[in-house]
Amino acid sequence: MAEEKQQGLTETKKGNFSEWYNQVVQKAELADYAPIRGFMVVRPNAYVLWESIQENFNKAIFKKGVRNAYFPLLIPKSFFEKEAEHAEGFEPELAWIESDSKDVEEKVAIRPTSETIMYASYSKWIRSWRDLPLRINQWCNVLRWEVRQTKLFLRTREFLWQEGHCVYETEEQAEKEALMFLDEYKNLCQDLLAVPVLLGQKTESEKFAGAKKTFTIEALMPDGKALQMGTSHNLGQGFAKAFEIEYLDEKGNKKLPWQNSWGFSTRLIGSIIMVHGDDKGFVTPPRLAKIKAVIIPILFDKTKEQVLKKAKEFEKKLDFLNAFVDDRDSYSAGWKFNEWELKGIPLRIEIGPKDLNKKQIVLVRRDTGKKEFVKESKIAEKAKQVIEEMHKDMFKKAEKFLKENSVEAKTWPDFKKALAEKKLILAPFCNTTECEEEIKEETTVTSRCIPFGQKNQKLKCIKCGKETTIKAWFGKSY
Amino acid sequence: MAEEKQQGLTETKKGNFSEWYNQVVQKAELADYAPIRGFMVVRPNAYVLWESIQENFNKAIFKKGVRNAYFPLLIPKSFFEKEAEHAEGFEPELAWIESDSKDVEEKVAIRPTSETIMYASYSKWIRSWRDLPLRINQWCNVLRWEVRQTKLFLRTREFLWQEGHCVYETEEQAEKEALMFLDEYKNLCQDLLAVPVLLGQKTESEKFAGAKKTFTIEALMPDGKALQMGTSHNLGQGFAKAFEIEYLDEKGNKKLPWQNSWGFSTRLIGSIIMVHGDDKGFVTPPRLAKIKAVIIPILFDKTKEQVLKKAKEFEKKLDFLNAFVDDRDSYSAGWKFNEWELKGIPLRIEIGPKDLNKKQIVLVRRDTGKKEFVKESKIAEKAKQVIEEMHKDMFKKAEKFLKENSVEAKTWPDFKKALAEKKLILAPFCNTTECEEEIKEETTVTSRCIPFGQKNQKLKCIKCGKETTIKAWFGKSY
Repeated sequence: MAEEKQQGLTETKKGNFSEWYNQVVQKAELADYAPIRGFMVVRPNAYVLWESIQENFNKAIFKKGVRNAYFPLLIPKSFFEKEAEHAEGFEPELAWIESDSKDVEEKVAIRPTSETIMYASYSKWIRSWRDLPLRINQWCNVLRWEVRQTKLFLRTREFLWQEGHCVYETEEQAEKEALMFLDEYKNLCQDLLAVPVLLGQKTESEKFAGAKKTFTIEALMPDGKALQMGTSHNLGQGFAKAFEIEYLDEKGNKKLPWQNSWGFSTRLIGSIIMVHGDDKGFVTPPRLAKIKAVIIPILFDKTKEQVLKKAKEFEKKLDFLNAFVDDRDSYSAGWKFNEWELKGIPLRIEIGPKDLNKKQIVLVRRDTGKKEFVKESKIAEKAKQVIEEMHKDMFKKAEKFLKENSVEAKTWPDFKKALAEKKLILAPFCNTTECEEEIKEETTVTSRCIPFGQKNQKLKCIKCGKETTIKAWFGKSY
Repeated sequence: MAEEKQQGLTETKKGNFSEWYNQVVQKAELADYAPIRGFMVVRPNAYVLWESIQENFNKAIFKKGVRNAYFPLLIPKSFFEKEAEHAEGFEPELAWIESDSKDVEEKVAIRPTSETIMYASYSKWIRSWRDLPLRINQWCNVLRWEVRQTKLFLRTREFLWQEGHCVYETEEQAEKEALMFLDEYKNLCQDLLAVPVLLGQKTESEKFAGAKKTFTIEALMPDGKALQMGTSHNLGQGFAKAFEIEYLDEKGNKKLPWQNSWGFSTRLIGSIIMVHGDDKGFVTPPRLAKIKAVIIPILFDKTKEQVLKKAKEFEKKLDFLNAFVDDRDSYSAGWKFNEWELKGIPLRIEIGPKDLNKKQIVLVRRDTGKKEFVKESKIAEKAKQVIEEMHKDMFKKAEKFLKENSVEAKTWPDFKKALAEKKLILAPFCNTTECEEEIKEETTVTSRCIPFGQKNQKLKCIKCGKETTIKAWFGKSY
């Protein structure tokens, strides 16, 4: 039996949330700090979630005509300087390569994002209207030398992400598809990760460096902070101009195309941990989980062989869930229960000598802890059903939290009251950089997004009182 | 109709092989040169092959208990220096980050391989025999600042690869599994890429920096050069010692574990192009291809609608092959035939007005160009069958070439004669660094591997004449 100490959580989610998060990440073996400050190791328990996200998202975008590719890690200095706003946005965080010993013509930096290096190729590849739309995505590592404190998955200097970069003949197409990809992000978050999101457009001061418009999906974390889950941009023609991407239209006229780009990162994994985790540890959204069930045999000397044999039978039967038998001799059943709860496997199947006679097993849901006896013959069907129920319940629970913790404010005192209650706040906003700056300075709160589909309204900005027609979401953010 | 010039190959495979290769790579849009010397862009037509390789290999290693993870891009200088041979092997090719403006305690470089950064984590994670074996793999980019001339897929400064790193209680386990993973490499190459390989052990001078033994799979390219397709290493205990990876055995004694590592890279894609490509362009090994069939409707004004409708029906029916209809108005059918031959889609399905009446289609195999009429009702079944035949025929053809171009040499003049004929040569070898160095200097040839399972033989080294019991493969290499 286990000689080692059980490594459970020593902090609760309602207690010190940040400490609880760090414990879940490390004790569930999702990630670890790297030897260099600001970097992280994505451990197998989390990387498998990233792979599942990739698999699902790849299927979705392949249908939309997107193809994956891989562009170089290093970008020449002159490329950053071609688009002024873009350069200004990223310059402070670039990591440059020592060039004295290298045969490079100019300084190069590790990519913080790949607009520039991709569009240099695009300008070679795109010749005529026949080459458009061009839709390319890449999964890669990027590096931004942040000075703020590291938070595993949420803020690290290197992170993994996908970045889609498309080129079109018209702005209408570029914007329409920027919104289409945003919608795919919503589907990914809600239908796979069970995390509800708010959609909208970023304000002037929060939009991407070099973009004309930025669209976003935002989720609310249990500590009342918003998390940006993904963004897509109408890039206008700025990059096309800077990188001389030109095409001949059907009539043979030289034209500048329109572009969009869109990305999400491994911070999605951070959101899952925060939203679904509990005092026992991590809870994997069941559709996302690769290993959806662990089978734990209850072993006594006399019946050991029979029980193990039956457990192995179930392993085969539940191969479509990548179920596995935890048959380690060196740990007790109770120890195993705790370990797999900590690591968040959606379903636990217990089988002991009594169950053998009754031709049944015990099925336990990770999120609710609810136990159920299931007839042997029904196990595959039942497991499938419980996985779907679990997904829906987890999503509903998170949606309820989002609803209960988002309010509308009409006056500045209301705004500040809601803020003290750690709520996400919808408020009339004039969408000027000055006003947003003032709000930020006074409250540390930033705008999250301007919801889509707002009817023409006569409103007054929550801060400056000037007339406006829109409301925006405000909140503290990661 | 097409106004643009068809971009076919202007060089043949039997002509200037190197120029032919570069043309296939670029005109089939597999890869492109990047703005920085020595770097490449992996374009969607090639990246999709890499994804297919990943998917297949991931399935194989998951069954062997391997889990994927992601470790940091940057490695501290002191890590490289912990294992002397390893440091010496990689030092000249490291790209260091400018550290003046960065808050790093010591110099850091972009990973050329990840032994050191991974094993630093392993030493934290591994505590007892219960934690072993530990089997982790990562898919990532690595960077080695090569000074030799760039060859797309075969020699670039940055490339994509997988690197598996496992830890065991005994050397027997470590070596057994190093060979098991080598066997998975063989399966991948032969059963998916249709490229036959030779297996064996590297000689003393060709083994990996820091390894006790290196195992390899080698393929023969049409120009007579060997290509190393993947290697696995028995790392011994050198890294465990250097990185203080220790565990408590069942009796509570502190022990040093044994390790192996194994990797292959995007150069596999280079091998496919060279082995299977022809004067029309690229030929995708059919099991590897994501898009296995293109449907080309033969369009005339009167029957256009009917033919297109039928083509779309087939697209649905052949969705399991990711088949698609090329219905572009702006290109002729002939132009399309050439384009998809150049890009190497395994199957072409032609459908015209005459076929409509006869309820048939024309099926064309990319490798042989063989045309066949197929009844509409049989198309799915037939396509599956042809894909399997095509794989087998492509493999057989490559195997025949390998057999016909590998010979045994017993004397030094034989060796040099075979070399002049651009053959791969099996010869008795003393396995000393001195002798290998001499052979290399005189002929530019290096040893490729020492085949497994050699019976005890009384031989004399082809070069120095000293007694030996083994033969080794020699050849020019990429």
